[in-house]
Amino acid sequence: MPSRLKRLLIGRPMKSTELELEKLSKLKALAVLSSDALSSVAYGTEQILIVLVTAGFAAIWYSIPISLAVLGLLLILILSYRQTIFSYPAGGGAYIVAKDNLGVSTGLLAGGSLLVDYILTVAVSSSAGTDAITSAFPALHDDRVLIALTMILFLTIMNLRGITESASVLAIPVYLFVIAIFVLIVSGVFKYITGGIHAEVPEIGTAVSNVSLFLLLKAFSSGCSALTGVEAVSNAIPNFRPPAERNAAATLVMMGTILGTMFIGISLLAYWYGIKPDPENTVVSQIAAATFGRGILYYAVQGVTALILFLAANTAYSAFPLLAFMLAKDKYMPNAFMIRGDRLGFSNGIIFLGIFSAILVTAFDGHTENLIPLYAVGVFIPFTLSQLGMMVRWLKLKTSGWVFRFAINTIGMLTTLAITLIFIFTKFNQVWTVFVFLPIVILLFFQIHRHYMNIASELRINMQQDKPVIKGSTIVVPVAGITRVVMNSLSYAKSLTENVVAVYVGFDDDDIERMEKKWEEWNPGVRLITLRSSYRSIIRPIMKFIETVEWKTAETDHITVLIPQFITKHWWHYILHNQTSLLLRAYLFNQKDVVIATVPYHLQR
Amino acid sequence: MPSRLKRLLIGRPMKSTELELEKLSKLKALAVLSSDALSSVAYGTEQILIVLVTAGFAAIWYSIPISLAVLGLLLILILSYRQTIFSYPAGGGAYIVAKDNLGVSTGLLAGGSLLVDYILTVAVSSSAGTDAITSAFPALHDDRVLIALTMILFLTIMNLRGITESASVLAIPVYLFVIAIFVLIVSGVFKYITGGIHAEVPEIGTAVSNVSLFLLLKAFSSGCSALTGVEAVSNAIPNFRPPAERNAAATLVMMGTILGTMFIGISLLAYWYGIKPDPENTVVSQIAAATFGRGILYYAVQGVTALILFLAANTAYSAFPLLAFMLAKDKYMPNAFMIRGDRLGFSNGIIFLGIFSAILVTAFDGHTENLIPLYAVGVFIPFTLSQLGMMVRWLKLKTSGWVFRFAINTIGMLTTLAITLIFIFTKFNQVWTVFVFLPIVILLFFQIHRHYMNIASELRINMQQDKPVIKGSTIVVPVAGITRVVMNSLSYAKSLTENVVAVYVGFDDDDIERMEKKWEEWNPGVRLITLRSSYRSIIRPIMKFIETVEWKTAETDHITVLIPQFITKHWWHYILHNQTSLLLRAYLFNQKDVVIATVPYHLQR
Repeated sequence: MPSRLKRLLIGRPMKSTELELEKLSKLKALAVLSSDALSSVAYGTEQILIVLVTAGFAAIWYSIPISLAVLGLLLILILSYRQTIFSYPAGGGAYIVAKDNLGVSTGLLAGGSLLVDYILTVAVSSSAGTDAITSAFPALHDDRVLIALTMILFLTIMNLRGITESASVLAIPVYLFVIAIFVLIVSGVFKYITGGIHAEVPEIGTAVSNVSLFLLLKAFSSGCSALTGVEAVSNAIPNFRPPAERNAAATLVMMGTILGTMFIGISLLAYWYGIKPDPENTVVSQIAAATFGRGILYYAVQGVTALILFLAANTAYSAFPLLAFMLAKDKYMPNAFMIRGDRLGFSNGIIFLGIFSAILVTAFDGHTENLIPLYAVGVFIPFTLSQLGMMVRWLKLKTSGWVFRFAINTIGMLTTLAITLIFIFTKFNQVWTVFVFLPIVILLFFQIHRHYMNIASELRINMQQDKPVIKGSTIVVPVAGITRVVMNSLSYAKSLTENVVAVYVGFDDDDIERMEKKWEEWNPGVRLITLRSSYRSIIRPIMKFIETVEWKTAETDHITVLIPQFITKHWWHYILHNQTSLLLRAYLFNQKDVVIATVPYHLQR
Repeated sequence: MPSRLKRLLIGRPMKSTELELEKLSKLKALAVLSSDALSSVAYGTEQILIVLVTAGFAAIWYSIPISLAVLGLLLILILSYRQTIFSYPAGGGAYIVAKDNLGVSTGLLAGGSLLVDYILTVAVSSSAGTDAITSAFPALHDDRVLIALTMILFLTIMNLRGITESASVLAIPVYLFVIAIFVLIVSGVFKYITGGIHAEVPEIGTAVSNVSLFLLLKAFSSGCSALTGVEAVSNAIPNFRPPAERNAAATLVMMGTILGTMFIGISLLAYWYGIKPDPENTVVSQIAAATFGRGILYYAVQGVTALILFLAANTAYSAFPLLAFMLAKDKYMPNAFMIRGDRLGFSNGIIFLGIFSAILVTAFDGHTENLIPLYAVGVFIPFTLSQLGMMVRWLKLKTSGWVFRFAINTIGMLTTLAITLIFIFTKFNQVWTVFVFLPIVILLFFQIHRHYMNIASELRINMQQDKPVIKGSTIVVPVAGITRVVMNSLSYAKSLTENVVAVYVGFDDDDIERMEKKWEEWNPGVRLITLRSSYRSIIRPIMKFIETVEWKTAETDHITVLIPQFITKHWWHYILHNQTSLLLRAYLFNQKDVVIATVPYHLQR
């Protein structure tokens, strides 16, 4: 049953050779990897305006230069990540680049930061998508956690089904969103030019007395939250069809162009239309209402915006399992993250991401807004480290034209570092937890690594000297009576060695005497040892007996304990049998250095 | 840790020989076994008055003849159960008596009815006790389920600690309750005689026009709910100190006398004081207030009443595990109910009772009042069957004086049958579920029985003909590389037989070639078979390989699969290792008829 359900949800298992077919074309990659970045358009401009409007309506003209600055930063990031893609065609996330050039600890800092961040992305996006739904249908407000969890479950299953298949389903909303926003921008600009909008807006350059540098920096850093998700492409190069790095670079540039155009378009329209941020009505919604009126086009824009916010989480589903795979390959995360599942995705990473984001959503009761700054810091730390790593790389390699490339990465590094610091200084009370979590995560990485290294050295053998050695063998068979099961076990034991001893635990002298007599009568050719238990426990006397056997023969013999076990026809029949054998097995396994052989007895009825 | 916690809660394990010391003296038995019956005094009279008052205040004089009728029934029950005790000194609950004289099915009907009833008892009593507490402290009203569950947990732990010890703790409230009620009755009677009460009450014999026979029967059956719990002593004879049946009979008579006196006393006072039932103020509370005024004595009576209601559940804790033991001994319930725990109680029965009553309390959100009629029917069905069984017994045995004894049981049978029928007819909508549940429970009993009988016949051997047979042996060792673990496993396998084969699953040709070369280089003296897995699964190719081995050698050889297993130093290290070996073990175990030997490898670091 469970396996049939799995088949239904996830699909048939796929051969390893089908992996190539699972790889992404540029257009599909754009859909899978850019939903996080593109969805930022839905709130980027608004984040800037919210900060500026605290200094009065006159200050909103600053949104234009700030948007241009964000656009400049986007350009720098795209250029520098393009360089990374070609330098690390096997997949160059911040983890690889930082580890390669700045050392393991820095790499783990970048990697850990991103891993935590992907979990936050899923939690925040699914909550934001839920908000969009419950704004439209207020009756659902009490079920917000349930809705968010359902979406996480849906994304998890889609991603377990495999990359291509989920891309096919999930690409449509991304394309629809891009089309909707472009139609909005073109119509909006057309309406503005033809004089259809009559809003009074402060002119660019107007002096505003209470605008401080701190405020502008805060507005800028808020706007930079629109850039999260840009790194996804460079992490996911192995998912591209060959030539992977070319396709990845092209996809990155495509994404940057679309994102930049949409972002600046929305910012311009917001300024021209004189839009004030309103908690009840998003900036995009106001623009759409002013452009189209509250008709079918307006609701179309709102609908796809809600969808894309949901799907932003999907980027994390592509990036997290790959990053976890890389960390696991380097032995900083459990091996389990290296296994490809039935559908060739890294199932354990996908499931882990789903579970932890679901926990976050539940713990925060669906109100994950406070996690947004944390999430931005979690992106800009690896951004900075990755650029710094590239700088070191150019200095080391000095390939032709390295000075120009070094310059790009230096500018990138300085800007992203600045933004990280601005985030930390302007929103410390919301981001301090990062300084608690990251060290713990990195410590865990190191502990896992040490464990794997220790074990590897413990298990290593010298192929010339270490060979299997033949010893004697003693087999202990605990018996509870004289039955077919005991007969089978003794047959098995006697087939392997002459040293077989049966052991029986009795609760009183009569009991023991009766058993000894019956055994003599049966005469199976195996010696019976009887033990008396004062405490009605079967386990303890047997454990003690095995200690004695170990003490006598461990030097010369392998000791095997034979445990017969019923296999019932129906699972619920198990409750009808005392699970002493399971208990004995668990005790022996944890406390003794003996081989435990389970002799199955399949019950026919 | 868990075992230390268990020790703290339950106490040190006890030797089987300490069982005699655990047995109950008459006084302690009275406390342990009578709390259910005695607590009925707190609501018995009230149940009668509630029914009568629906026909007007003038009808309340009927409470005196009805109480006398209940008293008469009590006398009959005590006499007939006394006869049962001497006839079945090994413990003669309704199950034993009915099974012995009326056949297995009837016995199971009685037994199943009682088992379900004990669970109801615990649920109802803990809820009633909680009501008493929350009436005193209304602030706790929202935590009623939590309080009831805490009480169930407390009773479960006390009973796991052992019979004597829980008797010592739980006896005090029972004694206090008896003393309090007797003080109340004596003071009340004294006050009435000395003319301290001036209530206008309808004279006995007054004609009341709208009193129907149906009403009187309903009032009588309601009053009979005071008799639940009387059977507890006869179920628990094995718990008494020798001479067990004498002590049990004496305890039964003691309990009957106390119960009868208290019941008739409360009924008389209620009539003399002209008390009307009031949902906000119980009859006992009204009598106590009228007798003592609302002073310290009043609160003492109320306090011990609340306590005894709670402890009524404890009777079920004594009776349920014993009855379950008897059913398990006859193979109608899982063997697990036959095991005495560390403290010599039947732990599984105690835990089962605790869990199921906790589920009931939670499912009904602490409002278990509606279960009361169900619970009364559940008692009177076995009452009737037990008396019927005794009647058959006298007819069969015809010992001296049997006619008199037969007469007592016949009267008892007819009255309890009548009460059962009255319950069913007057409260059908509350008790119909019993006709759904009981058949299911009895069907389960029979299915369990059939399973055990089938298995016994399947496992039985002919001691003269069936002896262990020696066959050949083939050992399969799945290997994942060349490590110390593999070397150990091969050493073990080679010590047992010459027919050892190692099997390796590779994911591609390079992988397989590399392994074959290394194996040749190592040359451990064991043949290596390599398998190629297209689906990245290790389990499936190995399962197929073992099928082939089975097909070739199962006739002549025992097949053993050797599975190496890491035992890590810290439990959390387990997540760092792929649990392929556990998975392989589970698959083999369920699907193949091979012996699975686990070779432990204790990691040092």
